[in-house]
Formats: sequence, structure tokens, C-alpha cells
Amino acid sequence: MLDQENIIEKIEGAIKKSERHIGEGEVASYIPELANVDPEGFALSIVTTGGEVYEYGDLDTVFSMQSISKIISLTMALMDNGKKVVFSKVGTEPTPYKFNSLIPIDDRASNPLINAGAITTASLIKGEDVDVRFERVMSFVKKLSESDDIKFLYKIYNSEMKTTDVNRAITYYLKSKNIFDKSVEEVLDLYIRNCSIGMKPTELARLGSVFANGGVNTKGERLVSEEIVRIVLSQMASCGMYEESGRFLMEVGFPAKSGVSGAILGIVPGRCAIVTYSPRLDESGNSVRGKHLLDLLSDDIRLNIFLHE
Amino acid sequence: MLDQENIIEKIEGAIKKSERHIGEGEVASYIPELANVDPEGFALSIVTTGGEVYEYGDLDTVFSMQSISKIISLTMALMDNGKKVVFSKVGTEPTPYKFNSLIPIDDRASNPLINAGAITTASLIKGEDVDVRFERVMSFVKKLSESDDIKFLYKIYNSEMKTTDVNRAITYYLKSKNIFDKSVEEVLDLYIRNCSIGMKPTELARLGSVFANGGVNTKGERLVSEEIVRIVLSQMASCGMYEESGRFLMEVGFPAKSGVSGAILGIVPGRCAIVTYSPRLDESGNSVRGKHLLDLLSDDIRLNIFLHE
Amino acid sequence: MLDQENIIEKIEGAIKKSERHIGEGEVASYIPELANVDPEGFALSIVTTGGEVYEYGDLDTVFSMQSISKIISLTMALMDNGKKVVFSKVGTEPTPYKFNSLIPIDDRASNPLINAGAITTASLIKGEDVDVRFERVMSFVKKLSESDDIKFLYKIYNSEMKTTDVNRAITYYLKSKNIFDKSVEEVLDLYIRNCSIGMKPTELARLGSVFANGGVNTKGERLVSEEIVRIVLSQMASCGMYEESGRFLMEVGFPAKSGVSGAILGIVPGRCAIVTYSPRLDESGNSVRGKHLLDLLSDDIRLNIFLHE
Amino acid sequence: MLDQENIIEKIEGAIKKSERHIGEGEVASYIPELANVDPEGFALSIVTTGGEVYEYGDLDTVFSMQSISKIISLTMALMDNGKKVVFSKVGTEPTPYKFNSLIPIDDRASNPLINAGAITTASLIKGEDVDVRFERVMSFVKKLSESDDIKFLYKIYNSEMKTTDVNRAITYYLKSKNIFDKSVEEVLDLYIRNCSIGMKPTELARLGSVFANGGVNTKGERLVSEEIVRIVLSQMASCGMYEESGRFLMEVGFPAKSGVSGAILGIVPGRCAIVTYSPRLDESGNSVRGKHLLDLLSDDIRLNIFLHE
Repeated sequence: MLDQENIIEKIEGAIKKSERHIGEGEVASYIPELANVDPEGFALSIVTTGGEVYEYGDLDTVFSMQSISKIISLTMALMDNGKKVVFSKVGTEPTPYKFNSLIPIDDRASNPLINAGAITTASLIKGEDVDVRFERVMSFVKKLSESDDIKFLYKIYNSEMKTTDVNRAITYYLKSKNIFDKSVEEVLDLYIRNCSIGMKPTELARLGSVFANGGVNTKGERLVSEEIVRIVLSQMASCGMYEESGRFLMEVGFPAKSGVSGAILGIVPGRCAIVTYSPRLDESGNSVRGKHLLDLLSDDIRLNIFLHE
Repeated sequence: MLDQENIIEKIEGAIKKSERHIGEGEVASYIPELANVDPEGFALSIVTTGGEVYEYGDLDTVFSMQSISKIISLTMALMDNGKKVVFSKVGTEPTPYKFNSLIPIDDRASNPLINAGAITTASLIKGEDVDVRFERVMSFVKKLSESDDIKFLYKIYNSEMKTTDVNRAITYYLKSKNIFDKSVEEVLDLYIRNCSIGMKPTELARLGSVFANGGVNTKGERLVSEEIVRIVLSQMASCGMYEESGRFLMEVGFPAKSGVSGAILGIVPGRCAIVTYSPRLDESGNSVRGKHLLDLLSDDIRLNIFLHE
Repeated sequence: MLDQENIIEKIEGAIKKSERHIGEGEVASYIPELANVDPEGFALSIVTTGGEVYEYGDLDTVFSMQSISKIISLTMALMDNGKKVVFSKVGTEPTPYKFNSLIPIDDRASNPLINAGAITTASLIKGEDVDVRFERVMSFVKKLSESDDIKFLYKIYNSEMKTTDVNRAITYYLKSKNIFDKSVEEVLDLYIRNCSIGMKPTELARLGSVFANGGVNTKGERLVSEEIVRIVLSQMASCGMYEESGRFLMEVGFPAKSGVSGAILGIVPGRCAIVTYSPRLDESGNSVRGKHLLDLLSDDIRLNIFLHE
Repeated sequence: MLDQENIIEKIEGAIKKSERHIGEGEVASYIPELANVDPEGFALSIVTTGGEVYEYGDLDTVFSMQSISKIISLTMALMDNGKKVVFSKVGTEPTPYKFNSLIPIDDRASNPLINAGAITTASLIKGEDVDVRFERVMSFVKKLSESDDIKFLYKIYNSEMKTTDVNRAITYYLKSKNIFDKSVEEVLDLYIRNCSIGMKPTELARLGSVFANGGVNTKGERLVSEEIVRIVLSQMASCGMYEESGRFLMEVGFPAKSGVSGAILGIVPGRCAIVTYSPRLDESGNSVRGKHLLDLLSDDIRLNIFLHE
């Protein structure tokens, strides 16, 4: 795909155009460690289903996955338990409420990509204790991203564990609804550890390219089943960009998931995964420059899944 | 597409498998005229972007578009006013509430595919009076479906106008929020007329094939802009199947819109449009056999947009 | 009561103290006719259960009852149908939403003192047509207020009928829930007529004194049953001051009902009815000076029903 | 009051009539210890403002205060902090949601008589640690009830602390909204200890008689200020009987607070406090026989505060 005529030129043009959003939005500050970044840090990484790579910007930046880890938790919960069990404990529908709201929990979280839903899927990841479970998550993330360099960002983890009252509230509420048998602390611990996984842009893009390629990596190994790929991508399409998901799908037209660290992972089935990194966020918690760059790329290199090529 | 090896066989296999849902669900009865159909009526029609046609079942059945007309109202509102005006008056996000609920209206309807949103888009269709506006709608539908035989089902219209208290409530509420200047009665009148457009399965599938083909018909004429196509299809993906939209996208994996008359229009970008007709509905108002058949077809002939071919 | 030592002095002191709220709040303007008043108009009228009267201010001002008429509609609905029928069609509980919101309607209005509830009770008032029903209402109001001078404010009525889209929306919604068989227009017509009844302060206070006296007027005639008196007063206590009802009961401590024309009717069981008139309203729609004056009177002449005398 | 003609006869008649509700409802079972009672246990105790006592039934039964302790927490929070501080952290309005719902918390709990509100008032009770705070609560309860025999029901406390996930969720949520600085565990600990205070019917009725008497006990000592008495009683009137509060006030007509242990404390200002004990509850969590007995007593000995005597 990247060897198509003029495509690099078009990508560079889109980056250029996205510069007018520099300085817009605010870096997340609800945990001190998150605020501790260069607000103008910027990177773009594209990995195609064929394994081609386009990279630009601060490629050595290590950011925490934050909410992007929700797609990993969902994938592993599905691998460990099957679709039927998972969706008996978490819903499939978008919600108009904020990602950390308690309202969308009735008897279960409304979908796996809000906090309550990702806490639910974290509770479904198997392993005898939190260390074993997290080792399984790390090992899976390393395999998907083809990197042994994936980090656990202890400072982020520690900072979040100390300030995460609202997630603790959500977890106790889920516990009171009998969503899981494990202890609240171990479920929350794994959830926050998953949020604290540290990656570089191209590592995340490579991880995403497996989903873009139907679950098979560039070496031809099947890492995720087709059924799980379509569940994860459809949920990203419906609910991946918080309460702006409908508008994002309308403007950009492919599944994506954002994290408050400033990364967005977009996935164009059969084509590529795209990672943008720019830590200034809008009010919904999505990276301002990131979402505009994805919009520009979608238009300029025709990535919208609702338009035939 | 239809000349691929074994594809007809696979389609027939899916129809066969869908037979086990015969008799499930209830025919809509909230207006007397809707209940006046053969509950076991059934049809399938597929029209590809290349103009190939596969048809099966009661192909002469004429059903009312009902909520499927919401995509026509949205398309024409966008053609007449542009994206900016339309989405200042209606939102872009799914809602967990019923399609005829008043709750998702705050200052405007949450999206164009619930009743309140489609009443809003109907109010935006231009023309000096209701007759002129509806003539424009009919003429557009005829052009899209390549048929002069499209009908206005007066009995359905008349029956709905007499019993549509909840839609009248919604329209007055939108009026009180200053969403439109026209009179409530003329806005409601056009909305109900649009719902009462009568089509045969293949006429609707041909209409859908224009959206599948990026807005261009089989003769190469552009009938809808690419921008409007991607808006309409993304909204169908997010909100087209009522409060089951997330799950439908997860299971079936392409945009669709259902109507309480029992039709569902599915659109596979770059491939085809598929119409199922089977009037028994589930509690959300979606055709039971129809949605299962779309699920089977998606799996058996690989139509999921989140999996590369 | 008014012959108690110093009581007139205390009342005059409270009026004086209430002067510091002059100029606070805004006159209702959602219908042009309502805005057509002297914003600094002011009156106080107290009628005791024994028939004593204290009056002060613009005693000849005629204001429309507006939402205060909701207690008349409730009373007549109960007289005409009994408690069981009425509360099968309207609830008994307060709601946190605005008085003209559609949210508190599920299958019925949450209580009889919000618009949806009062439209419901208006639908329950018997009479062969709207004229007969309204004549019954006027005749009942005249009897309660011991005045033949009660007016129908046609300009207010006419102005409201033209602009009442939100109430028309509510009425159609109730109709769609089968709350009444009558036509929407005749139900709404009576509701708006009731809102448009014009009274002077002491006429309203005398009307209220019948409720303060357990349903019996000063001549010893029973006009309302004890059962209906306690239903009406308890609902005024729970829901009479819109979304400020809890706080009002906490501060002032007796049942009250306000109207957007600027009047408030307070009722102290066994003691008196108090009418304040001052058309500048707070954001909830309650008269600013009126509610403060009632608070001062409650403290200074000990009217709180939760404190023994 | 109790020496009025026939009054004892009327009370006994009401008890007799209430017998037809024996066996209706279910004993609370959400904590094992609560289920551990005689479901047919029954007591009535009336203490007048003059100190007269009428007692009947299982007078030695010791029940936990449960939600009735919410009025003690509110009283002490007001004594320790004043009205302004307390109502900056908790609202004053009823809510249509369940007492343990998370929905009525927006930035603060909607009122002090739902769980979230009582956790808030518990957080406002002063003292250097939980032991000191609870000792202050116990000492205040002993003074109000004129009994040194008030118990701390350790088994109830222990059982609740182990199973109180939903209250822990609420407390963390309030913490995340910065409602209090203390730790979640110490706030929750005091809240559950307060719920676990054990009393006999007449001890609770005597406690209530202080509120009935404007804050002064039978010895003429002022234990609670008039301002706090009217705040507590008005909140009991608006919100004391969960989502049935409006209906209860309509039927019975005086402030009351129920607890899931099966007790209800009713307060008739200037007259008496009434305690019913009968552990079978309706779906709202109110004692079935208890609420019916209060209704009968209100009618038969004329206790409705909205009717003059």
C-alpha cells in the first residue's frame, strides 16, 4: 500500500495540514504522572497488513496504553471465556455518558470500551494471581507488537492506583452486582496495570496491524481468531472514541480507540493500522491533533471503510 | 460478485438455514394497516455494485419503507442544506432508549435514525409545500431504485396519521425547541408520507446498491456525493438497528437499517446491497428472520467489513 | 390568630425585611402577555381559618393562576373520579426534572403538580364539553374564593394557546400512553383555561383558607372532603415548589404552590392561607420576593408545621 | 394526649385491624444477620411530647436502627458543621431512584436520607477517630432515648461490613467527587456502625418524642435546636419512606423514617412519636404491617398534620 504513487507525499501533506492544531487542547492531568510529558510531542506510525512501515516524529516516545488497553482486555477475555460468557457480563451498546460515569451500569456495563466494561473484561482474564494474569497480558502484547521492549510504567501505575477512587467505586459496584468473584483489589490492580503498559508508536501500530489483517501477523501466524477480530473492531467503531464515537465514524470512517495519554490507534481492515501520538486532548478525552490527522489521512489516502476503493 | 464459485449455493444454504426462525416474533400491529400482511411472507434480494441481481421469494410484495425512509430523509436533508446545518439540528450519537422515546431529545434529537431525528431531517427537505417536497422525495427514490413503479401507500399513510400521537408529541417538542419554523402538521405529514412509500424487495436493493457503490449507479451517474454516502452508512452502522445496533454490527458487520414493515436494508460497501423481507419482528422492532439471514450471509459469503477478504 | 399580640407588627416587619429582594429575578416572558406586568408589583394577603383578613400592597392586581390552578384541577379530578382512578393515571412522587420536562413521564406523569400531571387531572374533570367543564371549574373557584368577580383572562389564554408547543407535546404523549380518551385539543384547552383564571390576592387567599380549614369555609359549609384536602396539601408539601420543593419545605415548613405569574399560595393547616404576589422569578420559576417573605413570616410568626406552637 | 376519651380503645382497634397484613412482605435478607429474626415479631410504642407512653407487643425486641440512623447522622452533622456546610455537600430533594442507587449522585447525593447522603453526613461527624465519633453518636442516642441500655450490635455490623460492596462503591464515588477528606474506610465504618445501633421500640419512640417536641425532652432540656428539628422532620416528610415518600405523606400525613430491620419511626409534631416494629418489608424496603398501622392510627386518632384538629 505504501508503494502506491504519491502516497508518502499525501501522508506528509496530511501531517503538515495537522500542524494547525498544535497547541489545541489540554494534556490529561488527573494523575500527576500523565501531566509529565512534552505537550507538543508528536508521532505518526503506519504499519500495513503487508508489514510495510511509515514512521514520523518522536518515534522513541514511550506512552502508556491507557484506554487502548481495553481492546487487549476484551481480546483476552474473549480468548479465555468465549463470546457467550463475556457478553453475559458486559453489554454491546454505546452510551451517551462519560467513560467513567456510573450511570451506564445497570446490571452490567453498557459496553467493553468504557471503564466499567474494561474492568469487567479484566476480571475475566485467567491466571492464578494478578502477577500471572499480567504476565499473560504482557506476553500477548509483546507477541502482537513483535517487540520484547514493551514496558510496565510503574510510576504511572503507582500514581493511578493512589488516585483511582472513581474506578474503585465502579469496581465495587460491579462486585455488588455479582459480575465477578475475585476481590475488588485484584481486579482493579490488573485493570490499572493494563493501562500502564508502555509502548512506542510503531510497537502499537504493529500490534494494530494484526487486527487490520484479520488476526494474522506478517509471518502468517494466527494470533487472534476472526470472530474476536470482528467483535473488537466493531466495538471500536461503535464505542471507541467515547461520546464522540458516532461523529468520528462519520468523519473518519474506520475503527479507532483513543487513550488519555494522547495516542489513538486506528485500524483500516485489510489495509493498515495507524497510530497518532499527540498528548493534548479535547473535552471527550481524545487527542485533538491525532483525531484531525486521522481525518485528513482518511480523506487524502481514501481509508474510509464506507467508500469502496 | 455473484459469479464467484459456489456463491449462489451458499446464499441458498443461508436461506435454508434461516427457515428455523419462521414463526418467531410478532408482526407490528400499532397501526391496523401494518398488521394486514402475510406474517410468513419472505423475500431476499441482492443487487451488486456491478448491477448483478439475486432474487428469491415473494418478489412482488410491496412493503412500506417505514424507518428505512430515514436514510432517504437524511440524504435529502444533507443535499438540500449541507452537513453543517443538518448536524446543528440533530446529533450523531446512538442512544440506549427506544426509537420513539422522548428521552433522547435534549435540545435536539440524538441521531437522525430515531424518530425524532428523522422528523428533524424531514423538516429540512426543501419545497414550497408538502406536496412539492414529497414529489421531490418520490422522484429521488425512483431515480435511486431505477423504477417508476414506486407507490405511495395511502392506506398506511392514513392509518398512521390517525394514530401517530407519539410522533406528534415528538414533533411538537422539537418545535418547542425551535428546531424548525414550519408547522408541526406539515413536518409530520412529510415524515409519515416518507414512511408510507411502497417498494418491492429488488427496488429497495437497487436503491441500496447506489450507496454500496459510493453514490454512483450502475450507469455511472453520481446520484449521491461521497460525503453523504459515508455519513449515511456510518450512521446506519452506529444506529441503524435501534438499541441492538452495537450487537448487530458485532455479529453481522455491515451497515443496515430496518423498518417495522419487516424489511431490512443491508449495505456492503464496494460489494452489494441486500434486502430481506419477513414481517415478524423482535422486541426492538427488527425482523427476526431477516436479521438472522443477514448474519448467515455475512458469515457464509464473507461480507463483514471488519475482516479483509 | 391575627389578634395575637404584636402579630401585625411582625407581619409588617417581615414585609419590610423582604424589600431587600426587590429587583431580584426576572418576570416570566415565555408568553408575551405574562411579561406585560409591573415587575415591582407586590401584595400580601392572609386569610385565617376564622375568616380574619390581613392585606397589604397592590390588592386590586389581577394575576393569572397559572400553576396554582393545578391544585384546583387535582381537587376536581378527585371529586369527580375518586382517589383510586386519579392515581391510576398520575403518580404521587416528586421528580428532579423541570416542571415542563417530558422525562418524568414514563407510563404516566410522576405527580399532579407538574404540567404533565395537571394536564392529566384536567382530562379527568367531567362535563359534556370544554365550556361546561370550565364553567364547573369557574363556579368552584368562585365558591371557594367567595367572589363572583373571578375573571377569565382571555388575552393570557389566547397567548398561551398559540405558544404552548411543549404542553401540546406533553398532551400528545399522554394520549399515546392512553391516559385519556378525549381529544388532545379539548384537554389542552381546559388546562390552559384553568391557568388563565384571574384573581386578586385576597380572593386566592380566601380560596386557600378553605384548604387550611380542612375543607370547610368560614360559613361552616364543607366544600372539599378531608381526604381530598390532605391529598392536595401533602402534594403541595412534596412537589409544590418545582425542583426546590424539598428546600422550601425545609426552610419555610408549610405546603405551598407557586405560579409563573408571580403568586405563591401557602397554606398553614388550622391557621391560615397566605398569598404573596411579586412577579420576578428565580430559575425554578418561583417568585423571589414571595418565597423569601414566606420564609420570614414562617420564622417570625411561627408557622412551621414541624414545630409545635 | 393518651388520656383523651376512647383513645386507647382506638389504638387497640387499629392494631387489631393491622393484623390482616400479618405474613405480607419479606424479611430483609441481604445480610445474613438481618434475616435472623422472628418474621412475625411485632411491637407498637407511642411516646407523647408530655412523656406519656403507650406500649404493645414484643417490647424487649432489640432491632438495629439501619436507615433510621440517617436522621441521627443528619442531626449531628448539622450540630457539628451548620446548615450551610452540610447542604453544600448533600442536596435537599427527593429522588425517584432506589435508596442504594448510584444514579442520584451527580456532584453530591440528592438528599441526606438515601445511603449516599447518609454516608456524606457520617463523614461530617467530628471526632479524632472513628471510635471517638461513634462514642459521640452513642452518647447522643442515649441522651435522646433516655436509656443507658442502647447496644452496638456487633454481629450486624460485622455482617454488613463484609457485604456492603454497594455502599463501598458509593463511598469511593463520593470520595472521587471530593465530598470528604477522610479515608473511605473510616467514613464507611462510622456509617455502618450507626446502622448497627440496637434499640427497643420504646427507646426509639422516646428518642423520636424529642423531635416531636421541637428539640426539648420531657425534662425541659433542649437537646436539638429548632432549626435542626425542622430540617430533619421536613426531610423525613419529603424523603423518609424511600420512593414511596409522596404516597406515604398523602396517606398518613406525618414525617416518618423506615429501616430495613422492620422499624418505622413516625413523628407527629407537638403530639407524639410512634414506633412500629414488624420485619416483613414491601419492595421499597418499608415494613408492610408498620406502614398500614401508621395509616390506621393517623385516621383513627387524627394525626395528619395537613388537617387541623
